[in-house]
Amino acid sequence: MDLKAKMLRDDALKGKTIVVTGGGSGLGKSMTTYFLELGANVVITSRNMEKLQNVKTELEAQTGGNVLPVQCDVRNYDEVEAMVAASVAEFGTVDVLLNNAAGNFISPTERLSANAFDTIIDIVLKGTKNCTLAFGKHWIDKKETNKSIVNIVTTYAFTGSAYVVPSATAKAGVLALTRSLAVEWAKYGMRFNAIAPGPFPTKGAWDRLLPGDLKEKFNPAKKVPVKRVGDHQELANLAAYLVSDFSGYVNGEVIVIDGGEWLQGAGQMNQLQQVPKEMWDMMEAMIRSKKK
Amino acid sequence: MDLKAKMLRDDALKGKTIVVTGGGSGLGKSMTTYFLELGANVVITSRNMEKLQNVKTELEAQTGGNVLPVQCDVRNYDEVEAMVAASVAEFGTVDVLLNNAAGNFISPTERLSANAFDTIIDIVLKGTKNCTLAFGKHWIDKKETNKSIVNIVTTYAFTGSAYVVPSATAKAGVLALTRSLAVEWAKYGMRFNAIAPGPFPTKGAWDRLLPGDLKEKFNPAKKVPVKRVGDHQELANLAAYLVSDFSGYVNGEVIVIDGGEWLQGAGQMNQLQQVPKEMWDMMEAMIRSKKK
Amino acid sequence: MDLKAKMLRDDALKGKTIVVTGGGSGLGKSMTTYFLELGANVVITSRNMEKLQNVKTELEAQTGGNVLPVQCDVRNYDEVEAMVAASVAEFGTVDVLLNNAAGNFISPTERLSANAFDTIIDIVLKGTKNCTLAFGKHWIDKKETNKSIVNIVTTYAFTGSAYVVPSATAKAGVLALTRSLAVEWAKYGMRFNAIAPGPFPTKGAWDRLLPGDLKEKFNPAKKVPVKRVGDHQELANLAAYLVSDFSGYVNGEVIVIDGGEWLQGAGQMNQLQQVPKEMWDMMEAMIRSKKK
Amino acid sequence: MDLKAKMLRDDALKGKTIVVTGGGSGLGKSMTTYFLELGANVVITSRNMEKLQNVKTELEAQTGGNVLPVQCDVRNYDEVEAMVAASVAEFGTVDVLLNNAAGNFISPTERLSANAFDTIIDIVLKGTKNCTLAFGKHWIDKKETNKSIVNIVTTYAFTGSAYVVPSATAKAGVLALTRSLAVEWAKYGMRFNAIAPGPFPTKGAWDRLLPGDLKEKFNPAKKVPVKRVGDHQELANLAAYLVSDFSGYVNGEVIVIDGGEWLQGAGQMNQLQQVPKEMWDMMEAMIRSKKK
Repeated sequence: MDLKAKMLRDDALKGKTIVVTGGGSGLGKSMTTYFLELGANVVITSRNMEKLQNVKTELEAQTGGNVLPVQCDVRNYDEVEAMVAASVAEFGTVDVLLNNAAGNFISPTERLSANAFDTIIDIVLKGTKNCTLAFGKHWIDKKETNKSIVNIVTTYAFTGSAYVVPSATAKAGVLALTRSLAVEWAKYGMRFNAIAPGPFPTKGAWDRLLPGDLKEKFNPAKKVPVKRVGDHQELANLAAYLVSDFSGYVNGEVIVIDGGEWLQGAGQMNQLQQVPKEMWDMMEAMIRSKKK
Repeated sequence: MDLKAKMLRDDALKGKTIVVTGGGSGLGKSMTTYFLELGANVVITSRNMEKLQNVKTELEAQTGGNVLPVQCDVRNYDEVEAMVAASVAEFGTVDVLLNNAAGNFISPTERLSANAFDTIIDIVLKGTKNCTLAFGKHWIDKKETNKSIVNIVTTYAFTGSAYVVPSATAKAGVLALTRSLAVEWAKYGMRFNAIAPGPFPTKGAWDRLLPGDLKEKFNPAKKVPVKRVGDHQELANLAAYLVSDFSGYVNGEVIVIDGGEWLQGAGQMNQLQQVPKEMWDMMEAMIRSKKK
Repeated sequence: MDLKAKMLRDDALKGKTIVVTGGGSGLGKSMTTYFLELGANVVITSRNMEKLQNVKTELEAQTGGNVLPVQCDVRNYDEVEAMVAASVAEFGTVDVLLNNAAGNFISPTERLSANAFDTIIDIVLKGTKNCTLAFGKHWIDKKETNKSIVNIVTTYAFTGSAYVVPSATAKAGVLALTRSLAVEWAKYGMRFNAIAPGPFPTKGAWDRLLPGDLKEKFNPAKKVPVKRVGDHQELANLAAYLVSDFSGYVNGEVIVIDGGEWLQGAGQMNQLQQVPKEMWDMMEAMIRSKKK
Repeated sequence: MDLKAKMLRDDALKGKTIVVTGGGSGLGKSMTTYFLELGANVVITSRNMEKLQNVKTELEAQTGGNVLPVQCDVRNYDEVEAMVAASVAEFGTVDVLLNNAAGNFISPTERLSANAFDTIIDIVLKGTKNCTLAFGKHWIDKKETNKSIVNIVTTYAFTGSAYVVPSATAKAGVLALTRSLAVEWAKYGMRFNAIAPGPFPTKGAWDRLLPGDLKEKFNPAKKVPVKRVGDHQELANLAAYLVSDFSGYVNGEVIVIDGGEWLQGAGQMNQLQQVPKEMWDMMEAMIRSKKK
C-alpha cells in the first residue's frame, strides 16, 4: 500500500479557487499542495506574510499552479473581509473555503488564565466563524452557488479531551457551525462538512513538546488500531474529495480519519487486547469444561 | 400523572450551597426554587440586581431558604471572581455550580453581524468557562472536593440548528467543556454533567417572538412525540438529581429531557406518522396478496 | 457521600407493577429490591424458577412487597406471551417493562462460532424485542397508557467494543429499538429509555473470569475518572427515576452512568493524565521563556 | 456539476477482488459496476441465481471486467462458507467484503409478528455477521492482510426510526459490529467502515410502495437541505474510496451521504426555514426599535 498515492483524476479541481486558512504550514500546506496538483488556484492565509511568500514560491515551482498569499489574522473581521476582497480581486470567484487555521495549548486547565483560554476560542471558533460569515454573506450577496466549506476539527470535538480543553470547546463549536449551516445555507448553494484527523505528525511538533522517554511513552501510533500515524497525502486525498463536486451529496458530515484511534480508547473492553493468547486458550478450556 | 410532583426526599440538598447563574428568571428560577425547597442555600446571579433582589424576597418567603443575589456579568472574569468571593464569604463553601445564564438570537445567520454572533459566544461559552474556571481554581486551591457542576445546553449542541447558530456553536462548546473536565478534574473531586432541555416555555418568551398564526404553526408541542411541552418541575427534578450526591456516578453525561423531540425529527421514516390507518390496511392487504 | 442512600420519596412507585426480566440476580435483583421498597409490585423472570422462588421469599420478607416469579426464556415468543398473561392475571395491569435479561461472551471474535454469536443476539436483541412487542401489543389492544419501558444497554452500544462483539451488536440494536419506539409508540402512551451502566460489579463475576494478577491489571476502577466502581443503589436510584412518572418528559434517551469511563478512553489527550506535575512545571517554564 | 462524474483514477482498484452481497440489483449493482470499471473482479451474491447470471452477462459486456455470481442466502452460515470458498477458488484471494444485502418492512411495529421482525434481524444483522465472520476467519487463518470491509447502514442506525424498526435495530447492530472489529481485528490487517446513505431511489421501489398523492407528500427530496435525491454514482464514488487503499487511515468510521437529511430533521429550529423573508424583516425591525 503506497500511502503517498494520489487518489483523484488529474483535473478533479481544475478551475476551482480554494482558500486555505493557515495554508502555509503543516497539514494546511500539504492539502494546498495537492489542490494545486489537481488544477486549483489556492489562496493561503496566515499572520506571517514572509512564510506565505516562501510557500508561494516553493509550491508554484513544484506544481505549476497559482498561489495567492494573504496576510490575515482570522480573529479580526476587518482583516477577514479584506482577505475575501483580495481573493476575489485575484481570481474572480472563490469556490471553496477550508477553515484550517488553529491554535492550541497542551496544559492542565487549572494552569490556564481566562485570557489564554479565550485566545484559543478566538482563533479557532471566532476565526472560523469570521471566514464563514464573510464568504457566506459575499456568496449570498452575489448569488453565487455550488460552494463547499470544509472545517478541520478533531475527534475530541465530540468526545471532549482533558489537557486541550480550550481547543476542545472551540472545535466543538466549529462542528456545530458546520452542521447548522449545512442545513440553513444549503438553499444558497453551499455545502458544509468537517474532517476530524487523528495523529498526522507535522515536523517537530510532537518532538518539541516532549522529552525523549515521554515521547516513546506517548507515541501516538501505539493508540491507533492500525498501528501507525497518518500520512499527509491520506488527509489530502480526503480533503480533495470533500472540496470537490464528487462529494456533492455529502453535507453536514464530519469524517474521522484516525485509524480508529478514538474508538480504541472508547470501547469498554478494548484493553483486553493486552490479554495474551495463552490466557484466552485457558479461559476457553475452562468454559468448555464447565459445559460438560 | 402530576407533572408538578416533587421527586427527591425532603432533605436531599440540605447543607448544600448552589450557585445558579441566571437564577433570577425562567428555568433558572424554577430550579432555584426547588433547590431551596430541598434545603439548599442558593446564590443567584444576573446583570440585573433589582430583579435578583425581588426574587430573593419572593423565594425566601415562599420556601424559607437562603438566597444570595450577586450582580455579575459572566463575560467579565473579574466580576466572576468577585462573585465566587461573595458566595464563599456568605456561605463558607460552594458545592454546586449550575451554569444556566445564556443569550440567544433567533435569526437567519446572514442577517447577523460578526459582533452580534460574538456576543452569544461570549455570554454562553466564555461565560460558562469563566464561572467554571474561577470555581475550579478555587476548589483546587482550597482542596475542597465532592463538587458537582451542571451545564444547561440544548439538543442542538450536538445536532446543530439553523437560525440559532451562535447559540448552537456556543452550547456545543459548553458540552465539550463538560466532557473534557469530567475526565480532567475528576481527580480533584469535581463531577461535570449537562442537561439538554427541549421545549419548556417560559412566560411570554415564545409569544413575544411570533404573531398568532405562526405561533400555532410552530407550536412546539406538535413536534414532540409525547405531544406536550415540559413542566418546569420536571426539569427541576432532573437538575436536583444531577446536583445531588445521588448522581455521584454520573459524570461527563448530557441528559436530554425533550419528550423525544429531536429524535422525532431525526429518524428518516418518522414522517410516516402522517399515513392514515386505512393506508396501512391497504398496504398490508397488498403485501399479503402478493405472498400468495 | 453515602453511596447507598435512597433517592426517591417513599411512595414514589406505589401502585405500579413492574416487570424486570432477569430480575432474580445481579443488577436486576438490586433494582427489583428498590422498586419493592418504593411500593411497586414486581414480576421477575428468568429461566431458572428455583432461583426466582428463593428471591421472591427473600425480597418479600425484606421489603414487605409483592413479587411474582415467572419462568421465561425471552428468546421464545410463546413463553413471553405467557409471561405477559401471568403478570396481568396476578396484578391486573403492568405499568413498566425493564428489559434487563442479557448474556455475554468475553472472547476474541475469531474464536466464536456463528452459533455462539447468534445466541447472544437471540437473548439480548430478540429477547428484548419479544418482551417489548408482547407488552406493546397488549397495551395498544387494551388501550392502556402511561407506560414506561426501560432497557439496560452499555456504553459499547454506541462505541462498539472488541472482545464482546456479539453483545455490542445486540445492545446497539436494543438502543435503536428504544429510540425508534420512543417516537412511534408515544401516541399510545408509552415512553422508552435506556440506561448504559459502566462497571457495577456483581459478586464473583469479574473474579471468576480473571486470575489474580490480571484482575489487578484490569481493575475497572482504574479506568474511571471518579476512581471507583458504581454501587448498585446508584443504578437503582437512576432506574427508579426512569420507571417513575417523574421522568415523564424523558423519552428516547440513553443515560450513561459510568463515572466518565468511556469518555476517559475516548478523549485523544486524556492519557496525559500520566504526565507528572514536574513535567508540566518544566513545560510551562519552557513556554514562558520562549515568549520573552 | 455532473452527478455521474467518476472520481477515482482509472486503475484505482486494479487487481482487487471484491465481494458485494446483494450485488445484483439496486445500489449494490451500481457499486459493482463502478468497481468493475476501476479494474476490480467482483463476486456478486443473492438468493436468485438467474438474476445474478443476467447481471454478470450485462456488466461483463459493459465493463470488460470479471463477475462471479454466487447463489447465497446470507442467513445460512454454511452457504456463506461455500460462497467464501467459491470466491477464493475463482480469484485466489478476496480483498474486500461489501455487506450490502438487506431486507426491510415499512410498517407500524404493532402490525408485525415476532417472526417477521426476526426475519429482518436475520438477513441484515446475522447475515452481515455471517459474511464478516467467515471471511475474517479465512483471512486470519491464511494470514492475509490489507483487507477492507464496508457495511451499508442507514442514518437511522444511530437515530432510530419509526415504521422501519426491525431494520433500525439490525442496522444499528451492524454499525456496532463495524466499530468493534475496526479495533479488534486491525491487528490482522482488516479495516472496517460503514456508509449511511440517505435517499438514493432505486427504480420502482418508492413508486411501488405509495400511491400518487402520498408519493408527492413524502417526496424524499423535500426533506433534504440540498433539495434532491442522490445519484447512484455519488454513492459508488464514496464506496470506491472506502474499499480502496486510499482510505487506509479511515477505520471504524460511518460516513453519511444524505445531503444533510437527518440533520435537517434533528435540529430544533430548522423548521423556521418556513418563515418568510417578510416576517424576518418585521422581527428585525422590532428588535432594532426596542434597542433604541
